[in-house]
Order: sequence, then structure tokens, then C-alpha cells
Amino acid sequence: MKVAFIGLGRMGQAMATRLVQAGHELMVYNRTAAKLAPLTALGAKPTGSVAEAARLADVVITMVTDDAALRTVSEGSGGLIETLPRGGIHIAMGTHRVPYIQKLAQAHAAAGQVLLSAPVLGRPEAVTAGRLGVLVAGDASAVERCRPLLQALGRRVFEAGRDPRAAAAMKLANNMLLGCAIAAMGEAFALVQKCGADPGSFYDVLTDGLFAAPAYSIYGRIIADKSWDKAGFTVALGLKDIELALDAGHGAAVPLPSAAVARDRLIGALAHGNEERDWAVMALESARASGLA
Amino acid sequence: MKVAFIGLGRMGQAMATRLVQAGHELMVYNRTAAKLAPLTALGAKPTGSVAEAARLADVVITMVTDDAALRTVSEGSGGLIETLPRGGIHIAMGTHRVPYIQKLAQAHAAAGQVLLSAPVLGRPEAVTAGRLGVLVAGDASAVERCRPLLQALGRRVFEAGRDPRAAAAMKLANNMLLGCAIAAMGEAFALVQKCGADPGSFYDVLTDGLFAAPAYSIYGRIIADKSWDKAGFTVALGLKDIELALDAGHGAAVPLPSAAVARDRLIGALAHGNEERDWAVMALESARASGLA
Amino acid sequence: MKVAFIGLGRMGQAMATRLVQAGHELMVYNRTAAKLAPLTALGAKPTGSVAEAARLADVVITMVTDDAALRTVSEGSGGLIETLPRGGIHIAMGTHRVPYIQKLAQAHAAAGQVLLSAPVLGRPEAVTAGRLGVLVAGDASAVERCRPLLQALGRRVFEAGRDPRAAAAMKLANNMLLGCAIAAMGEAFALVQKCGADPGSFYDVLTDGLFAAPAYSIYGRIIADKSWDKAGFTVALGLKDIELALDAGHGAAVPLPSAAVARDRLIGALAHGNEERDWAVMALESARASGLA
Amino acid sequence: MKVAFIGLGRMGQAMATRLVQAGHELMVYNRTAAKLAPLTALGAKPTGSVAEAARLADVVITMVTDDAALRTVSEGSGGLIETLPRGGIHIAMGTHRVPYIQKLAQAHAAAGQVLLSAPVLGRPEAVTAGRLGVLVAGDASAVERCRPLLQALGRRVFEAGRDPRAAAAMKLANNMLLGCAIAAMGEAFALVQKCGADPGSFYDVLTDGLFAAPAYSIYGRIIADKSWDKAGFTVALGLKDIELALDAGHGAAVPLPSAAVARDRLIGALAHGNEERDWAVMALESARASGLA
Repeated sequence: MKVAFIGLGRMGQAMATRLVQAGHELMVYNRTAAKLAPLTALGAKPTGSVAEAARLADVVITMVTDDAALRTVSEGSGGLIETLPRGGIHIAMGTHRVPYIQKLAQAHAAAGQVLLSAPVLGRPEAVTAGRLGVLVAGDASAVERCRPLLQALGRRVFEAGRDPRAAAAMKLANNMLLGCAIAAMGEAFALVQKCGADPGSFYDVLTDGLFAAPAYSIYGRIIADKSWDKAGFTVALGLKDIELALDAGHGAAVPLPSAAVARDRLIGALAHGNEERDWAVMALESARASGLA
Repeated sequence: MKVAFIGLGRMGQAMATRLVQAGHELMVYNRTAAKLAPLTALGAKPTGSVAEAARLADVVITMVTDDAALRTVSEGSGGLIETLPRGGIHIAMGTHRVPYIQKLAQAHAAAGQVLLSAPVLGRPEAVTAGRLGVLVAGDASAVERCRPLLQALGRRVFEAGRDPRAAAAMKLANNMLLGCAIAAMGEAFALVQKCGADPGSFYDVLTDGLFAAPAYSIYGRIIADKSWDKAGFTVALGLKDIELALDAGHGAAVPLPSAAVARDRLIGALAHGNEERDWAVMALESARASGLA
Repeated sequence: MKVAFIGLGRMGQAMATRLVQAGHELMVYNRTAAKLAPLTALGAKPTGSVAEAARLADVVITMVTDDAALRTVSEGSGGLIETLPRGGIHIAMGTHRVPYIQKLAQAHAAAGQVLLSAPVLGRPEAVTAGRLGVLVAGDASAVERCRPLLQALGRRVFEAGRDPRAAAAMKLANNMLLGCAIAAMGEAFALVQKCGADPGSFYDVLTDGLFAAPAYSIYGRIIADKSWDKAGFTVALGLKDIELALDAGHGAAVPLPSAAVARDRLIGALAHGNEERDWAVMALESARASGLA
Repeated sequence: MKVAFIGLGRMGQAMATRLVQAGHELMVYNRTAAKLAPLTALGAKPTGSVAEAARLADVVITMVTDDAALRTVSEGSGGLIETLPRGGIHIAMGTHRVPYIQKLAQAHAAAGQVLLSAPVLGRPEAVTAGRLGVLVAGDASAVERCRPLLQALGRRVFEAGRDPRAAAAMKLANNMLLGCAIAAMGEAFALVQKCGADPGSFYDVLTDGLFAAPAYSIYGRIIADKSWDKAGFTVALGLKDIELALDAGHGAAVPLPSAAVARDRLIGALAHGNEERDWAVMALESARASGLA
């Protein structure tokens, strides 16, 4: 199976490396050609355009920044829809808007191709360590054919269903839940502190019991310590993800009031110049509204 | 140290039993005298009134249903404020309104007594298994004196601070966070399902990663399976807890928009006759608002 | 028709005066007897207890502060339920909790009496000027009998229906809508100001067009001028009304997310020491959350 | 002063007609040339391209559907930025995104031109009847020069300030307030109805008093009568406006929780197939959540 990999940012780099190391024959393409070198050194075949990569491929994986980049790669002259052979599979692994995934799936189908949506959970370090989570949704036989690729990329493959929107939505819903959990923690910490409680002790209660999971232990720690200056995930990125979830909710006609609360706290953080702080700084907005800050 | 235990409902029964088994000398009182028998059989001394229990006690533990019951036990003729000796300690272990705890603490202080607030995390089975969590807040030396009692009751004692409101608030904030997590999950499951995803697969994603904790594994399971008919914790009880948290927020001047979202979902559940179902049925309200139900 | 009037605070004083001036034969009672004098001077007959007023009355009007006061007047020994003759009518004209009105209506019915709920819209000056609005709900023939009284009290009588809760709910819903309008205006003024607009000009736009009504002209003016120091209606009173509406929503199983937004802004105002300012100071909370304050 | 008018949809047609009738010398352009005829018949001069209209103009008025249309007219080869003479004024009178207005203002400034933002309040019938409201923001001397044009268009000109974003934001904030008022009315009507009240009577209370303004009399009527089948303004359009307001809030860092409530109700209306009904159908979503529908 001939595989092309498009998009060699930090995540793409790590993912493509993993595929080569697993023995897959890989063509690689990146808008900035300089990024091809490390993969070429490992044996991947460099290509000079999307079309060159796609024309010979059975499967094309894209790992690009946003919808605009995916549109550039997929649509128009020399794009995947034009150049990927009939029967070819495009696996879109970036985080994209649900309505765009739907539109792109239809365009590929009209060209006799298949789109799989396969966003991932984890950062570049998780890829390297083999701990990436991979969601996948789309045509059953295409998923079956691509399973070895997806398994090579990480720890576990979660199958979301036949509708390509499903995997994209699950990725966004997962991140949305995290934003909601942080927003609610911000309220809870403000409440206990205004009643005289020690935030460190409240942190212990949470993470010892019902909430003994990374979402609460990582972000509860930051809130209890007010250590949001060092950002793991910024307000800017968090707000982008929440907006993507709200947009998916609009597209699928699902009201999302909890996400709207998180959105408002993140916008309050923007208003106070905290765009580049960790998004746990939402808690500072709850503190401010409570007269604590 | 002479200890009196007032309130032998299911939780109180299990807690008092544990104290007797740990070797503490215990006087017991319950409004309905029939409930005294099991403890008397274990060696506890039955008493016929709050006053009889309190007059000889160094420490009185109350484990009663609500504020009204705590008021009856504490205030008025023959109540704890009148009958507990100066220097005596009252440990209130039920779930109570923060403003009432504050008022009661002042009344005890005026009578030369000390109120500790010490609500618990866990059900009767957790008590018996030694897995109860105990929060405590109030005067430092009183906490020190009572530590052996609190440790005998469970697995871990969390110290919330010197203000008795602190422990009460932490209990309410913990339950509030749970309600917020369930409400947000309800939105997330509706979103992924309307995008064609399999809810069981989404459950796997959540509990495999960021949200691998009981709050999500227990309630996510119920939502994915729509198994809210069998209630672990009912809408009626959940709404009571959320209202207590909102009331604490009002008293402490802390806006709680995430809790307000959970409140509205629970009220929607009331409107559809689901008062006695598990409070995870909040998810059905999100589904309904999305045209899924 | 013999009428007793109980509760001579500022509103009650003005209302009772109007009834006497309209030629109604009136017995009056007030907990603080000193307040009887002005009405006695106009020809009303003073009484020394609720029972004395009620025993000879066909109709008893109560205009008391809150549910606790209404309970004191109505329940227990010497209260209206005990002393009002069978067939007698109790018109409750204060602002009360919907569930309490329901409970009281049942108690009166069990005693062969009728409760009408008849809250009013307007302040004491409106009463004197004949501009009071009167809502009324309850048994049709009782409403018919009392119509001359209600008409004497104000400008217009609005009939809410047969269920006594209906009038109480309409009063709360009216005040709730006002709180929601002010909260939304607070957001709108923050938005236009952060985009460089002159708030006075935005005020002109609103009140010239879609929103040319007192709710917007009075409170929009205060927001545009930041003149909330002089309170027409305080945060404390506004929050009490919003909580009554939310409580009615809980009782009737109606989610009220817009009211919850107003509640949170009012609680934020509490947190910043603005309890006694005009409730238009909600706008300052929107400004604060936007980095304007 | 030579004036070009671009965009002859229903609103543009009515506005251009009014300018010609007021004696202004007008060049007109529309993408679909057929729409030029009525204005040519009145004496306006037809043109075949944006560039042809702009090259000879002192002032160009655009009245186009959305940002995409405004971008097409303004940017790129033959667009206003390229073809309008230095010192020329572009008055954008459509409803546009605040960030795009800001970007466009900067582009015009860089080309030595001036952008005024001047959205309008009212429908085509209001234009014809001379009742249009016009908001305007931008450079003071440009506003002064264009005042006769703006005054000819309607009843009243509201000056929002020097920042072109200001007028765009005021337009969006005005519509947002309307959506918030309708959402809150939906809650209020559900509340009173579940307490047994007659909705027509509640309508009378509102519109007789604090809320005697079109926002409440028009939309309250629709809600009381459930007459949303005949749409004055659809859910689809209302949701577009609320999203524009939320987008402006994001751009200006202003949290808008009341608008988020309206958004969720409108999305719920989408979910139930009511996209083309009047946006007062938000009230049906409140009714549904309350178990009424």
C-alpha cells in the first residue's frame, strides 16, 4: 500500500516518523520543503507537490493546521480531489470543523474517493512515546484497509462510526468537556475560597475521589497554585476549540449551554490580557466576578 | 473522651457502628428509639433525649437529614446549645446550608462551645468498608482533639481550614462539580450522536484518557446506555444539592453559571416526570433540546 | 360588604386610604398600632388583632412584606384561616412565593374560605395617583364580588385566571423580565463601548425604536450615565425578586436560563459591595468582565 | 457631490430611490443589471462595473448582503479600494461583522480613502415611508459631508462616534437585545402558563406597563397567540444576527451570556425544524423544556 503524508509540522513530523519506522513505504510533502529532510533521511520519498504525492498513492494522510490549509490541499487545481486516483482514501487527521469534513466527504465521494476523518488525542511527545489516541470514522472497508496505519500511529484506535463527521465531533466534544470541567472548577474553587477553605485541600478532595483523572489533577493543580503563567494550552487555543465545538453544535442543531459558559470565561480572560496564559486562567475570571481578584 | 452520636439513619448507623468497633465509648440518640437497638447490642449507651446525650458529652456528633433537623437538635429548649457543657464540641457531619453552619457556629461560640463542620463523602457501604472521606473545618485545637474520631470513621481526613463554613462549602462544591460534569457530558453525547457517532465509542474515548475517573465512568456509562431508570442518585436529590450550592454561592457572593446550567437541566427533568430517575437523565434533556428524544 | 385591611406599611397605607376615599367601610389592623392613626382619622375602624378584624369581615385584604408575615397573619391561633367566616375571601396583595400561595389557597379552601391572589404593579406614589396595576387570580365569583374593591385601588385590573398561583406568577415573571432586560442591556452597552461607540447615542437608538418603553428608558439611562448610586430599586431587592422567580420556576418545573444570567450579575454586584445601589449596576459587572471597569 | 450606489436588492432599491427623489445625482450599479431599470427610469445613471461607478464618485454607498459581497465589491482588482479616488468616502450600510469593518477601514485609510459604517434600522417599507433609522460612525468631517445623504435616507441619524466599528456594533447590539428580550419572554410565558395564567392576560400586563414598546408588543403577541408560522423575521435570520453579535463580542472581548441563551433557544428551534418560522418560536423551546409542548 502506497501512502502519502502531507503536513510535516511538529505533529505531522512525529506521526510520519512513526509510520516509516513501522516499515510503511511513505511519500512525504510539505509546503515548506525544508521540513522534508529528517524524513527523507529515514527513507521516505520526498515529493514536490500535493499532486505528485497523490497521483501514485493508495492512501493520503493530511495533518494540517486548520480548515483553510485542508481546503488548499484538497480543492482546486492539483488538489487531492482532482489528483487522488479513484478508490483512493484521504485520511484527514487534523482538527477540523464538522461542516467542512461533511462537505469534503461529499466532494471525495463524487470523485469516487473516500474520506476518513481521524483526528488524534495527544501531543507530539505522546506520538513518539506510542501513546497517541486515534479516532476514526467513515466507510467500513476503508477503515479496515487503513487499520494497520492507524494502529502504527498510536496506542489505541477508537471507531466512531460510518459518518466521517463522527470522529471530528468526538474530538471537539472531548476538548469541549475539558473546557467545561475547567470552567466549573473555577467556580468551585472561588466558592470554597470565599467560604474560607484552603484551595490545596479542595484539590486533594477532588483528585482523591470522583475526579481522580488528568482533566482535574492537571488543571485543578494550576488553579489551586494560580500557576497559569506557564501555559500548557493557551486561552487562545482553548477558545478556538470551544468555538469549533459551538460551531459543530450549531451545524448539528445541538444547544451547548455549558460550552457557552466556558466560552464567556475565556473571552473574559482575553479582556484581561491573558490570551497566552494557560486556559485554567478561566478560574481567575470566576474569582474576579466573585470579588476575589 | 465521652462521645454522643445523634441521628441513626442509614449513614449514622454505619458511622456510629464504626466508632464503637474502634473502641470509642459512645452514647447514642435517635428520634425514633427503635433504631438504637443494633448499637446498644454493640455496647453503645442509649439515651432518651438530646439533652441526656449532650449533658455528659465532651463531643457530640450529629448526622441528621437537613437543616430543619439540625435546628431541632441544636436550638431551643433541651437543644445542644443549651445542654452541651462549656468547652464541648459539636461535630455536624450532615450536608447543611453554608449560612446555617455559620449561624450555628456563632451560637455555639456564644455559649462557650465549638462547632466543627465535618461533612462526609461516600455512602453507607463506603463507611462499612472504611472508605469514607471526611472533610473538617473549624477551631484547630478542637480538630486536633477530634482527629482520632474522624480517622476512625474513614479512609482520609481532609482539613479545609479554620472557618466551619469551609468544609460545608467543599462538600457542596464537590457535588456541584459532579452535576456540572454530568450536564456537560449530556451536551457532548448529544453532539456526537447527532454527528453520527456511536455513544459507546465516545464513552471509551473519555474514560480512556483525560476523564478516567468515577465521575465520568459511572455517569458516562449511564448516559451511553440510557440506563437512568435505575437511580444511584435521583434527580430530586441532585437538584437539592445543586440548589444548596447555588444558595452557598449567593451567600458568599460567587456567581455559578455552570451550576445554573445543571440546575436548568434538572428542572427540565422534573418537567418530564423524571424526578426519581438517576440524575444522569439530564442528558435526556440535552437530547430533547437537540431534537433527538 | 365589610372589608378588613391588614398591613399598613407604605404601600398598604396608600391602598387603604384609597379604599376609604372610595367610600368603602374599612376595618384596619397593623402589627405596629401607631400606623393606624392616619386611617382612623379618615374614618376607618381600628382593630387590635387579626382575629378581631377577620371575624366580622366579608373580605380581608393583606398587604404584608413577605411569606413569613403572611404566614403569621394567616396560620395558627387567631389567624385568618381560623377566624375568617366560612365563605369569606382573603385577597393576598403582597408579592409572595408561588408555592406558598398554592398551599395557602388549599388551607383556605379546606376551611370553606376563598383565597384570591392579587399582587400589584407600582409604588406608593402610583397608588395615590390612581395608576396602580392590579393582577388577580382565583375563584370567578369571588373575583366578581371583589371587583369594585380592586378597581378602586388602581387604574386597571388584569385577570390572570382561576388558579391563585397565576397572578403571583405573573407578578414575578414581570419583574424577572425586567431583570433580564437590564442584564442584556449591560452586555449590549459593554459591547458597543468596547467598539468605540458613545453610550448616550446607543441609548437614543434603543429608546427611539424597538425599546421605547420604561424598562429601557429608565434603566438604559442609568447605565449610559453610570448613575446607579441613586437607587430606585436596589440590587438586594432585585436579587430577591429574581430568586422568587427562579423558585417559582423550580416549583412549576420551568427552566429559566435568562433569569439565571441576571441572578449571576446581581450576585457579582453583591461581591463588589453594590448591594444598595440600583440594580442597573448589573451593567458594571458586564463592564468588569469585559475589562472596562 | 457625485454619489454612486452599489447593491440594489430590496433595501438598496428603496434607499437609492429615496436619494434620487431628494435630488441627489446618482450613479447606480448592481451585479444583476436588470435591477437598474427602475432607478434609471427615475434619472439615475447606470454603470457596468464597480470601477466605473467608483472612479467618478466622491461618495460610494454599498448596501450588500453580507461580508462576502462587501469583500467582492471592495477588495481585489477593480474593487473600491483600488478605484475610488483618494479622498473618496465609502459608506457601508449593510449589516457586517465588526472585525471586517475594522479591517476594511484600515485598507481604505491606507489608500487615502475614508470608510464610514452606517447600518440602518428598518425594512424597505420603512425606507419608503421615511421612517428609516441610520447609525453612522467614522471620521468627523466625512460624516459632516455625508450628512445630507444620510438625512435624505430616513427619519433620524444617530452618531455613534469616530470608530467605524461603533455603528456596526450598535446595529448588532440592538438586534441582540431583541433576541434576548424574546428569549426571556419565552421563559416568562412558560412560567405563567404552568402556574395556570392566561397568556393573553400576561401580554396585557407587559405591554400596558414597563414593556409598552414594539419589541414586546410585536413578539409578545406572536408568543401569546403561538402565531409563529407567519414569519416576520425567521429563526435562520435571527440566529445569523445573534452569531454576528457573539462574534463581535469575541472580537471586542465582551462576554455575552444573555445572547448565548438566545442562541441556544434558536438552535433548539433549528433542531425541531423551525428554521423558517418567526424567531419568536424560541418560546416553543422554553415551553418544550418545561414539558408544555
